[in-house]
Amino acid sequence: MSPSELTGYIGEMARTLDEAWSRLLPETWQVPQTLVEAMTYSLQAGGKRLRPLLVVAACEDLGGSREAALPVAAAVEMVHTYSLIHDDLPAMDNDDYRRGRLTNHKVFGEAMAILAGDGLLTHAFYSVVQAARRHGVPAESVLSIVEDLSAMAGPRGMVGGQVADMEGEQGETDLERLRYIHLHKTGDLIVFSLLAGGRVAGADEEKLAALRRFGTALGLAFQIQDDILDIVGDESKLGKPVGSDIQQQKVTYPYLLGLEESRREAARLTAEARDTLLDAGFSADCRLLGIADYLMNRDH
Amino acid sequence: MSPSELTGYIGEMARTLDEAWSRLLPETWQVPQTLVEAMTYSLQAGGKRLRPLLVVAACEDLGGSREAALPVAAAVEMVHTYSLIHDDLPAMDNDDYRRGRLTNHKVFGEAMAILAGDGLLTHAFYSVVQAARRHGVPAESVLSIVEDLSAMAGPRGMVGGQVADMEGEQGETDLERLRYIHLHKTGDLIVFSLLAGGRVAGADEEKLAALRRFGTALGLAFQIQDDILDIVGDESKLGKPVGSDIQQQKVTYPYLLGLEESRREAARLTAEARDTLLDAGFSADCRLLGIADYLMNRDH
Repeated sequence: MSPSELTGYIGEMARTLDEAWSRLLPETWQVPQTLVEAMTYSLQAGGKRLRPLLVVAACEDLGGSREAALPVAAAVEMVHTYSLIHDDLPAMDNDDYRRGRLTNHKVFGEAMAILAGDGLLTHAFYSVVQAARRHGVPAESVLSIVEDLSAMAGPRGMVGGQVADMEGEQGETDLERLRYIHLHKTGDLIVFSLLAGGRVAGADEEKLAALRRFGTALGLAFQIQDDILDIVGDESKLGKPVGSDIQQQKVTYPYLLGLEESRREAARLTAEARDTLLDAGFSADCRLLGIADYLMNRDH
Repeated sequence: MSPSELTGYIGEMARTLDEAWSRLLPETWQVPQTLVEAMTYSLQAGGKRLRPLLVVAACEDLGGSREAALPVAAAVEMVHTYSLIHDDLPAMDNDDYRRGRLTNHKVFGEAMAILAGDGLLTHAFYSVVQAARRHGVPAESVLSIVEDLSAMAGPRGMVGGQVADMEGEQGETDLERLRYIHLHKTGDLIVFSLLAGGRVAGADEEKLAALRRFGTALGLAFQIQDDILDIVGDESKLGKPVGSDIQQQKVTYPYLLGLEESRREAARLTAEARDTLLDAGFSADCRLLGIADYLMNRDH
């Protein structure tokens, strides 16, 4: 997929997802209005929509249906959004702003923000099940998606990575621990997205294994690239001040390896990701490889 | 089931569940130790274990296997426990003690308590899937359990009830709203437990409908009984001071209807629950009816 085709695809996916919320959120059910507002506020805050994009792209690259992938794409964005809401809480990172908007607890209060996060996490599993109920994806495949999501977003996955990040300290965090944090805090949900898209498309074990390796390498490269942009990025494009990691004395790849070595590592991982897909028979102009290139060359 | 048989059954279930945690928690996986400790601390805090008991009893009353019901029983206790951890947080009820022990955030700090709750909620879905993976429950049945759990613990269910409770105020909460709060904050997880036990046992739609009606009536009766015990209970048996609802000017059934009318309503609901099961062909000495009687006659 060429860069311009890809830009169109990314925009199209973001719009499709935004239109899908109203169908996928429990808006018309008997739910306290404030709860729906708090959940919706953060879901609609925008952002890259990278994870849902990966679900749909993996599914479509393997010949699966976009419609069937959408409930799963929405689910992974709900899980990602809940994790941001809880991360921003005063007891955690205590952030007042995210992407230029007030954080959930600054608008709805701490108690509601905790519950909005809990609601999004729980409803994500409901959304996943709708792939079977509304689009006929086999129960066995959807159950594997549920299993992956609970493992990769749970204690062994994202939550575990978050705890390790919270407990990490300068001088104590070495490269192995930093890798653990990145692999789980960020990487697992990226791997999940790819596997889930593959499962919706009915991918075989070989394709799923390739998607897993691709996602692991891509997720790590993505995180290293984030750390690099925090140092050399353009504030106006990033939408946040650069240098915050250094100010907070955060342990990052550039902190441990230096900028040049970090760039080489990100490039090496991206090449590894690329080769993995090509070896597994994905076409050179498939959506996923376009996205990998896009992520490596992004400036925000 | 006779009262003494039932007491034995309840104790046996609690022990079985306590032994099962070590198999069902991600103890031996690569998970930060503090996270596992925080999750385990609250899971092992004891309590009635009512919800897992209902899962196993419904399953066994319908001829299903106890072993197959256990991962689901453990899951509902994980969800119940996560909701208590988050409810106790300073931003919510701000409780320092629960069942005579320090609350999770008093021991592990607020950030870890939030993440331990998130971890338990997410891992509950993993545990549910193990009913299929380890015990051969059909994928379609397990997917329905996942769907029920996400609906009944999520925005439409327990989380919605919690929000309504938080927003409720004396003078504003009427009987209809109080019913909504009880039905969702407490009732939905009880209904879920019964349905899930039925689904593990392969119950047909008629039996599932009866379990749903039984659970709705039983859950409401259980909550009214709780409110009554808060007024007339024995502090030494309850393990908490009585009269706290009145002190906090909480809107309860006795507050709205008076003590006598509340007792009548609880008895009426219990009779309704009983008739529902008998009409659906459950035997008069089944476990679920024993549990219903036990709950109505409890003093704590």
